[in-house]
This record gives sequence, structure tokens and C-alpha cells, in this order.
Amino acid sequence: MSNNHIVIIGGTACGPKAAARARRLDQTARITIIEQRENLSTATCGLPYYISGVIRDGSVMIAREADYFRNVFDMEVLTGTQATTIERKKHTVQTTDLKTGKQSTIEYDKLVIATGSRPAVPAWEGRDLRGIFTLSGIPDAEAIRTHAAAMTGKEVVIIGAGLIGLEMAENFTLMGLKVTVLEALDWPLPALLDAEIAAHVAWHLRAKGVNLICGRRVTGFVNDGKGNAGGVKIGDETVGAAMVLASLGVRPDVSLAKDAGLEIGQTGGLAVNEYLQTSDPDIYAGGDCVETVDLVSGGKTLVPLGSTAAKHGRVIGTNITGGHETFPGVMGTAIAKVFDLNVGRAGLSESQATRAGFDVVTTLVPSYEHATYYPGAREITLKLVAEKSTGRLLGGQAVGMGDTAKRIDVLATALTFKASADDLAALDLAYAPPYNSAMDPLHNAANVIRNKREGYARGLSPTEVKRKLDADEDFILLDVRSKAEWLAQHFENRQAKLIPLTELRRRLGELPRDKEIVTFCRTSIRAYQAQRILDGAGFKDVEFLDGSTAGWPYEM
Amino acid sequence: MSNNHIVIIGGTACGPKAAARARRLDQTARITIIEQRENLSTATCGLPYYISGVIRDGSVMIAREADYFRNVFDMEVLTGTQATTIERKKHTVQTTDLKTGKQSTIEYDKLVIATGSRPAVPAWEGRDLRGIFTLSGIPDAEAIRTHAAAMTGKEVVIIGAGLIGLEMAENFTLMGLKVTVLEALDWPLPALLDAEIAAHVAWHLRAKGVNLICGRRVTGFVNDGKGNAGGVKIGDETVGAAMVLASLGVRPDVSLAKDAGLEIGQTGGLAVNEYLQTSDPDIYAGGDCVETVDLVSGGKTLVPLGSTAAKHGRVIGTNITGGHETFPGVMGTAIAKVFDLNVGRAGLSESQATRAGFDVVTTLVPSYEHATYYPGAREITLKLVAEKSTGRLLGGQAVGMGDTAKRIDVLATALTFKASADDLAALDLAYAPPYNSAMDPLHNAANVIRNKREGYARGLSPTEVKRKLDADEDFILLDVRSKAEWLAQHFENRQAKLIPLTELRRRLGELPRDKEIVTFCRTSIRAYQAQRILDGAGFKDVEFLDGSTAGWPYEM
Repeated sequence: MSNNHIVIIGGTACGPKAAARARRLDQTARITIIEQRENLSTATCGLPYYISGVIRDGSVMIAREADYFRNVFDMEVLTGTQATTIERKKHTVQTTDLKTGKQSTIEYDKLVIATGSRPAVPAWEGRDLRGIFTLSGIPDAEAIRTHAAAMTGKEVVIIGAGLIGLEMAENFTLMGLKVTVLEALDWPLPALLDAEIAAHVAWHLRAKGVNLICGRRVTGFVNDGKGNAGGVKIGDETVGAAMVLASLGVRPDVSLAKDAGLEIGQTGGLAVNEYLQTSDPDIYAGGDCVETVDLVSGGKTLVPLGSTAAKHGRVIGTNITGGHETFPGVMGTAIAKVFDLNVGRAGLSESQATRAGFDVVTTLVPSYEHATYYPGAREITLKLVAEKSTGRLLGGQAVGMGDTAKRIDVLATALTFKASADDLAALDLAYAPPYNSAMDPLHNAANVIRNKREGYARGLSPTEVKRKLDADEDFILLDVRSKAEWLAQHFENRQAKLIPLTELRRRLGELPRDKEIVTFCRTSIRAYQAQRILDGAGFKDVEFLDGSTAGWPYEM
Repeated sequence: MSNNHIVIIGGTACGPKAAARARRLDQTARITIIEQRENLSTATCGLPYYISGVIRDGSVMIAREADYFRNVFDMEVLTGTQATTIERKKHTVQTTDLKTGKQSTIEYDKLVIATGSRPAVPAWEGRDLRGIFTLSGIPDAEAIRTHAAAMTGKEVVIIGAGLIGLEMAENFTLMGLKVTVLEALDWPLPALLDAEIAAHVAWHLRAKGVNLICGRRVTGFVNDGKGNAGGVKIGDETVGAAMVLASLGVRPDVSLAKDAGLEIGQTGGLAVNEYLQTSDPDIYAGGDCVETVDLVSGGKTLVPLGSTAAKHGRVIGTNITGGHETFPGVMGTAIAKVFDLNVGRAGLSESQATRAGFDVVTTLVPSYEHATYYPGAREITLKLVAEKSTGRLLGGQAVGMGDTAKRIDVLATALTFKASADDLAALDLAYAPPYNSAMDPLHNAANVIRNKREGYARGLSPTEVKRKLDADEDFILLDVRSKAEWLAQHFENRQAKLIPLTELRRRLGELPRDKEIVTFCRTSIRAYQAQRILDGAGFKDVEFLDGSTAGWPYEM
């Protein structure tokens, strides 16, 4: 109990959570929330679905009305109010009422900065034309919803194939717009996924009619002559657009904190300790505006997610009322619905792990979400990344129409406890045919990692095999599927050769002993078995195609 | 590589897995599988769904044909063959061909016992009558399928409300039978669930038309005069039955091992070390016939599941070919589809934890599988059990039409690493509105455990509140929901009183200060807030109803 005045700047996610927690722990503190928009506690993550009408009722986008905070939590709520200056020595915040322009000064004992983030938009030529949007809060969503509703059949260009960009690709498609997605890097979700998982996403986007263009940078916008964006320039080319959404990710909104002289981290986020305390011990900060610890690499990272903001809120609420709670960090966990695909990741991608200096072993395992004999099993392709020398898991990615979320959550949990592939393979996960196979896809993937580390299994990634085929290298691409599977679809390359696994032991004479052999089947299980048969027969240079045809993300 | 002869007795799950792994690691060993039935590698867990036709094609119940093992794995497969004696000194197994009666002797270097389990059936009066079934392998399933198909509209009695019993209750109902389930203990899934979670299952079974009778023991069967079971006797009563399924769980099939003088554990399962080696170093055992370590309590347990058998198979396959792999144990994880409910558990139940000597704190949290503003969110009720003194998690249960499997798997993973409630609350789980809320139900439940341990939150279980109401104790059952919610449904008891949370601060004068007050809302969030407001106002004896109305499993 106290007579502290707790002032919280920012009312979206972290702020209200911190306020509610603080009130539960301290019934007498004075608590004030300052929010520049009209609403507190908004469900920002649902906005893409509100825009398309998947979520019909806009009122559900507000989790709790400001009056609820006033009546139930007994706190002062200043909406439509901007915090303009923090005077740390005086322990005051200057505010401006955005309607009346009236300025006020509020004294604080403890201050919470939860100012969130802003969409990053480069200073492109023509960026002030009408019809170019970013998506951050409810007003953006209302504007996009209204504009897009009038654009049925016309072209919308989404710049940036990140989480919001791909969610909007789906929702704009549902609204009847023709969608182009421009991504400067080489594949969709480049900050989250490795090439061979992202290739599944790219394939699916195109199958859903999205015009996905990767590896091209936007240089500006074309004026349609009436002050509207009429197209997006990528070098010399122009992609026609009646509407543009710039979704290049967000940057922490730290201007207020910076002006107050608080320490900003190398990532550009506000620097905080494990108690979410800034460089000023009376000021805490959380949500999108702070940087946090990456629990796998140990480095600092920016992961602007509502899930993290909510956790931050509780920690701050505890600490500003005299408690001692810590926020350990994040696992880089993310998930997105991209039309019918569920794509997720946790930990480090292969490229992130390699960049962080790890010597890695990876595997790509296509599988099903539950027992295949139980109706309705949908596919999942799982990639695991582990440290070669120790077997410690570093991260993983999953893509497919099946339940990837469960596997990502189990993986994120295992990574939190620095699990090895051995640990993962031994997990006692819930098994019954409607929910899983006797071996979860994570078990199978962990066992492939173990087989590789022990030297039994040797895999080549689809990316590597694709490179070898494109270079027309001299090797045998040994298809060990059945004749029927071969007839349905097969590699046309000269390197390809069919020997069904059931015939392999008696047809070994048909294979040259002086050439590299890469075996494959549908999911890699038979391909691995074939590799072991060939190993046993004295063949010296045999590998299997990781993920085989089910994991192959390219044209066959 | 070796010239070992590896002999494996049992071809359902663990056996074939051990054989395949052994072959992958050792291309020259001689490997023989002995199986008394006609098929290897059967999908036993799918049989309830095959019986009803949910799984249409019986052939998918056989994962791999015997010829596949012969051709691909280069091993000898003796189906329709029973192992009758193990002579450990001579390193031989006696076998009988069940068709011809021919006896043989097979020498082994390493022997694997994977003889599985048998349904437990007491020596009830009349148990040899026609129409009384147990469900173990494919022949049982075929017999039940044929018999049940002729019984549409008639009564079937299932004895035992365990996993198989409840799966069959659903599948018999789908087949048009009138289903009665008899359970000797007080609620369904008594070995897995605590009362307040099981009550949801009981409610759902009855809502689906199942006649569930708990707390009554079967004493025998009634003869219909033609040698068929005509009813099941429970004491003086008889429940009419045109068909009976006895599903009282299974017992390890250890007769062969016992006769050979191998050590049997206190649970009745074969005793094995962490390498799954029996008391004879040349004999390994796995699957349903062995006992295993419970990783939470550290004691020995029997958990006959295909998922464990598959893991055992790999460990044994490694070790019989000279490797050193261990099986750490199980987490008691289980899940079942009971009509539209997904009910699962991991770790210890509250009653198991209390019996094991733990001082526990528990919570019951009703929640949704994903953001409620995203369409289609289904309910989940989650119970967590933790050690009071340390906050270490001991177990949990989840029930609902929503995705409980994910939460059980995350919990099982966290339990494996001896996670505390603090650890669970900090997990970076995958968040996007179609998959989860910003706070997963596990986060919320972990935070309630923390609030209780810190003394902020004080809950009473529904079981306890029901007892107080039934005893007509003098207390206030304070409904803090809105008037509209109250009008829709409310407690009629004299203890019940409505003060919506938004009005509570100004209506404190209406509440007596000398009585116990138990607050409730729909999910406990407002009820906890109300408790904190009353605490702050100086009320001395306030708790909230854990799980509130959404978690309340009784009539209101």
C-alpha cells in the first residue's frame, strides 16, 4: 500500500496490463494512464482480420473500455492526450490534450513508458500520395477498410512480406483485390524463415493468386495525375497499384525517452534491465518500445509482439509497486496464418545460427499432424537446427496446413530449457490418433538430428540438391519410391533413376560405385533406409535428400 | 557390424521398431521377429475408430506388411508363431507354429521381449457368456465390429470409463447403440483426472446420451437363456445389455518373462534399467510389458501407450547393436477425444500429488483456445497443480472443445525440465489471433498459481464451494458479473448475491464484514479483481471461486 503516483504513458497492451497489475497489488496508489488515441487496450493484432470482415464487429477490437479502468481499477485515464516531455529531475510529464491543445504537467513517483512502435517507411519519392497506407492502430484499419472496400477487382501492392504483409495479402484477397507483394529480400518472411521453409510459403501465396515478387527494392511511387498512388516503382519497372500498404516492419517509438536522456540500446529499442527498468531507476518501460534478450543467442533483439507486451505489463506492474519480478527474454517465437498455411518458428533460423557462429546440423522432416489412418491428417514440414558439437537445439521452423502451432510451442518450451535433440526425442507428448502419431513430428526430426550427429544419416538440403541439378552435376538421384508413385510425378533430370526400396537389395548391381548417390522417397524415411542399405553394401558416397518430395519446395 | 542373432518376441509396436532400428545400425546381424498374430506393426490405437467406421479401410490398421520387413530390412518374420519358453542358460527360445503345431528352438545372442499387455478382466460370474468382449488386437476389433453392426438400437454396456471405454462410448454411439458406461470409481477417467475436470467429461457424456453410472461395481452377468449376456449385474440391480465391452485397463503380459525367472517389478511390469535391459543382460524389454519411471514422482509406473512403445523400440534397437541409449521415463501424459471434448493431462493429478506427499497449490482457469475476437474460439478449462513451497509444477489437466492437446504438450515439456510456475508464465509461445491469445491459458493459469503463492489470490475449488452450498453454510456467494449475465443464469441459493464489478467500489456498504465472501464471475478474472477490492477495503475473509461459472461442472 502506498501513496505513490504511478504514471503510465501508452495504453495499448503493456500499459493497461501494468496498470491493472499495479492496482491489484496496491489498492491505494494513484495511477494515471496517458494515451494519445481515443481507446485503451486495443486488439491491434486482430486488425488485418477486422479490415476484411473476418472479424465483423469492430467493438471487439477494444478489450476493455476506458470506463472499466476508471470504475473497476480506480485509475485516471487520459485518452486523446499526448505526453510531450519527461522532466526526470522534476519527476514530471508534460502533456497536451489533442482536442483542446491544453497543456498540463503531471508529477510522478514511478513512470512507465509503453509508447510502442511506429511503422517504418523510407523516404520514398511520392510517399505522400493518397492511397498509401501503413497499419498500426484502429484509425489506420478504418481507413484501409474503407479505401479497400471501394477497390474490389483493382490492384493493391503490399510492400514487405513480413507477418503483417502476408496477413494482409490474405485479407485483401478475401476482399476481392488483386494482390502483389513486393519483398526486397529473396523470400517471404525473410527475418524469420530459411529458404526451404519460405519456399513453401511462396508456393502457397502464388497458388492463392498472389503476385509475389522477391529480391526487388521499391524506389518510389507513381502519381496517377490526381495525387493518388498509381503504381509502385521497382527500379525501371512500375507495378500498377490502386492502393498501397507499406508493411516493412515497425521501429520502437523512443522519441520521448530519447529526449529525456534515457539510454537507447544498439537495436534502437529502449535499454532496460531484467526488471524492465530503464537507465533511470524510477522509470520502467515495456512493450514494442524496448529491446529484449534473445534467450538462444544471449544478444539483444527487437521482437514487437502483443504476447511479449502483455508479459512486460505484469512484470512492470509488480515492480512499480515494490515487487521484484524479472522478464527473462524471448525465444524469437512467431506464427502466422498465410491463407491455409500455418507457418511458425522459434529460436534461431539456420542463417541466424550460422551468423551467430554456431556450427549447425539441420534436418527437414515432412510429416502429418496426427496418425495418418485417422481421417483428416494434414501435412507439416518441420525444420530443426541444432549445434553439431553438442546436439543442443538452436531453433526450428514449421510450415503446412497441419497443426504447426503445437510443435512450435513445444519447441519454444524445449529451447527455453536448452534442450538437446536427445531431450526432444524423449518428450512424453500426448498421443491418441486424433491428436498425434505415436511419434510426434518433433520426435522424428530430433531422431534425424541424432542419426546425423552419430554419422548414420547423411542428408542434403533441397537447396543444395537444387543447386546440383541446376549445375547439371554428375550424380545419381535415386528415387526409391514405388513405381506407382514414380508414375504420378517424378524428376525428369538425367540424374534421376528409380529403384523401389523393396527391390534395392537385389538390384544393387545397377548402381555405379564411383558416383555420388542421393536417395529420396516421399518423406525421407525410405530414403534414409536406402542410404543405410547402400552404406552396408560398401557404397562410399551416399546421402539422402532431406525432406524428399514432400519437403521439396520447387518445381519437380 | 556383427553376426549376432537378435530375436524379438512381439511384433505390434516396440518389437518392429527395435528391429528396424537394429537393422539400420547393423547391416549384418541376423534378426528374427516372432509374433503370434497374423500381422506385424498394427495400429492398435486406431481400433475404436475402425470399429465404428470412422476409419473406413481396415488395411490402414497395418502400418507395414511382414514382407516389407523381409525385403527392406532383410529379417526373418515368423507370424502366427508363439514363443512358449525362454531358456536363458542355453540362449534359446522355444516356439510353436500356431497353425501346424510344429515346435522349434531358436538360438539368440540378444533377445527382446515386447509381449505387450492383455485386457484385465475379473473372474465375474458369467464372463464366458457370448457377447462379452475385450478390445486388444485386430481380431477383437473385427469381432466387435461385426457384433455391434447387428445391434443398432440395442443396449451396450461398457465396463470401465478409462481411455478405451470412453473412446468406445463415442464409437458405439456413432453406430446407433444405446450406451451405458459403468465405472467402479467416482468419476470417468479416474486414474487420470481430478473430480472437477472429470465432472466436465461426465456432463458431456450425458449430454451425448450416454448413461454414465459411477461408483458401482460389476458383480457378474445375466444369461439371456441362450448363452448370451443379457445384462450386467451391479449389486442387486441389472443393467440390460445386448452386448458388453469390458475395458478395465490392461495388465503387462509377463508370463514368458516370469517363467524365465526375469525380475518383475512391484507394479507387475517387467523390471528394466534405463537401457531397457532386464535382470538378464542379454535380454531387453519394452512396450506395454515393462514398468517405467514416472519423471515427476520418481517412482515406477505402468503407462501402456503406443508412443512409449515406439520410443522404447528405438532405444532397444540401439542397445542390442552395441549402442548406449537411455529411456528416461514418462510424464504420465495422456489425451482422449470424448465426443467433442478434448481431455488431456500430464504429470500428477492433485490426488496423485497429495498421495505422493506434496503440499500443493492448484488452480482452475477457464479460457479460450485463441483470441476471442477471432472467429471460432472454443473453450478450454485448465487445471494446474504445483508445489506450494517451491512453485514447481507437478502436473495439469485440460478439458474443453478447444485445443487442449497443445497445452498438454507444452506442459509435459515444461514438466520434463522441472519448470516452476514462474518459468511457465515466461514461456515465449507462438502468438497470432488465429492460434492463441496474447496470454496463453497456461500463462494465465501459471500467474494464478503465482498470485496464490504470493498471497494475493485466494481461491476455493468448485468441489469445495459445492460442498459448502450443499451443507447450506452461512456465507456470501458474491456474483460480480453484469446484470445481463445474471439474468441469463444464476445461482438460486440463498447465499448468492449480485453486485456487478463495475459497481462494487461504491456498493461495499451492502456487504457484511463478519461473513466469509466467495466471489465469482464467468472465468475468475473479475472475481479475483473483486477479491482484491474487498481485501483493499478491509474485508478479512474473501476468496474467489476457482474457475467461476465457466469452470463450474455442476448444475447451477
